[in-house]
Amino acid sequence: MHHRRFEVTTLGTGAALPARGRYPTSQLVNVNEGLYIVDCGEGTQERLRELGVNFVRIQRILISHLHGDHYLGLMGLISSMHLMGRKEPLFVHGPPMLKEIIDLQLRASATWLRYPLHFTPTVPESGAEVFADARVRVTALELKHRIPCTGFVFTESPALRSLRKDRVHMIPHFKRQAVKMGEDLQLPGGPHYTNAELTEDPPAQRRYAYCSDTAYEPALVPFIEGVDLLYHEATFTETLRARAKETMHSTAAQAAKLALAADVGKLLLGHFSSRYKSSDELLQEALPIFPRTMLSDEGMTVVVDPRSIV
Amino acid sequence: MHHRRFEVTTLGTGAALPARGRYPTSQLVNVNEGLYIVDCGEGTQERLRELGVNFVRIQRILISHLHGDHYLGLMGLISSMHLMGRKEPLFVHGPPMLKEIIDLQLRASATWLRYPLHFTPTVPESGAEVFADARVRVTALELKHRIPCTGFVFTESPALRSLRKDRVHMIPHFKRQAVKMGEDLQLPGGPHYTNAELTEDPPAQRRYAYCSDTAYEPALVPFIEGVDLLYHEATFTETLRARAKETMHSTAAQAAKLALAADVGKLLLGHFSSRYKSSDELLQEALPIFPRTMLSDEGMTVVVDPRSIV
Repeated sequence: MHHRRFEVTTLGTGAALPARGRYPTSQLVNVNEGLYIVDCGEGTQERLRELGVNFVRIQRILISHLHGDHYLGLMGLISSMHLMGRKEPLFVHGPPMLKEIIDLQLRASATWLRYPLHFTPTVPESGAEVFADARVRVTALELKHRIPCTGFVFTESPALRSLRKDRVHMIPHFKRQAVKMGEDLQLPGGPHYTNAELTEDPPAQRRYAYCSDTAYEPALVPFIEGVDLLYHEATFTETLRARAKETMHSTAAQAAKLALAADVGKLLLGHFSSRYKSSDELLQEALPIFPRTMLSDEGMTVVVDPRSIV
Repeated sequence: MHHRRFEVTTLGTGAALPARGRYPTSQLVNVNEGLYIVDCGEGTQERLRELGVNFVRIQRILISHLHGDHYLGLMGLISSMHLMGRKEPLFVHGPPMLKEIIDLQLRASATWLRYPLHFTPTVPESGAEVFADARVRVTALELKHRIPCTGFVFTESPALRSLRKDRVHMIPHFKRQAVKMGEDLQLPGGPHYTNAELTEDPPAQRRYAYCSDTAYEPALVPFIEGVDLLYHEATFTETLRARAKETMHSTAAQAAKLALAADVGKLLLGHFSSRYKSSDELLQEALPIFPRTMLSDEGMTVVVDPRSIV
């Protein structure tokens, strides 16, 4: 149904203390061949290498907050891109202090990057635009954590309208792109066709919401309502609800509750505390509340399907 | 012969651009059960975990210079120690700017470490003392790199004198420690024995020199002369000698030449450029010049043997 790719690949599933083969948080989001890194814990570049990702293709890196398990792999990745001879600009979005951290470390190593690095500070304010390019528009989510923390909603750009099979022969090739883009058809000396007569609605714009470290936050619901895929941290099970509250993290049940309230397509859990040998425990807690729940796994890719085909 | 442990475990063998399963530079040095980390590239904590090293036992971390491949794993390790509930002080030695980098990142994550972190700036001046504790004394080497870069010479503390087998029965148990420490023996009403009559010289103090990133630097010879083990970077082969010069790195042949000039016990090569699929090429270049050359390998432990038994 969808010719355009929209995928989320998990590069790390662990929480603050990496253990049990779990790398800290990072995801690779591919929207129609635009590559975006979301959070970048230590070892992210190693995981990318394992997956055979060409670093040059990475256009933007989004950092949710400045706890080490979400950004300590960034400098290494920036440095590797430099050493690999990158020329293309890299866009980094994150908390304002991240700029200071990058600059200080570049200065310490006397590195002058061979490519332009454009930094844009993020504001953790739900609905605020983080960036928009030809493929996707990303807005912020105000998460509830111990330090300012921004989640992200990816909305793919609208697809072109589809030409109706029974009308396509009536449209000369040189006019098809214009019609797909919504224009009516008026050929010299011919009848006038409205766009609605010639085309069908394109597939709905798919949406993916990334809720990095956060306490249970129902205020997010209006901003993530109906997304096709929701990633939500699930650091603990309900047994450790008090610990979750204290550290401003969520339990698997809370993540599921939010997914249910926001009526999302699918829920992807991650950021598992090192105390859980198996993340199945977390899945079992979430499933009865929200059945369309999945566990993230190192290197696993999830396709962002439209909700309708769930 | 030696009851006291003196070992170097390689945690990463790669150069600036990690690749081919090579982690960036880091070593774990164990001197008589004191654990010291020398350089700390991204992923060091992962390697330590693979090797089953208890992080609490790590007493000091020494950083040679502020190129990312030598220190970007430090913050993650500091943070993990914190999360694991460390109480014991941690001593960090490195270039002055490293303190700023650590402080800024702790501030950004609003982390107040649960353990004291004592930072001491290093001065890349050959012979200058970096630290000394009960087990080892470490002095600096002034390496020749693009930014200030300090090598390290580890000299184990002198062992106690050995009691002569044919005399040990003459020394009451409560006096043995004192005699081992060099005292004469005078028992009430008994004869006087000089220490030399009762003991033998202890094994020589073993020495290990770590030459992190550096161009070929013969000025190091007086400071590493006769060490039992020399680690020296070997980023390139002679084919890329110009590139080595330009980037202020060494070829395998240059490392071997230095080992020969300094008459060291063994030479351990590392910091292999990602262009070398196999590091054998580097070994083959060094061996004809200095036969007692070894390649470092991820996770490999080398015992610092006294030169005499080489």
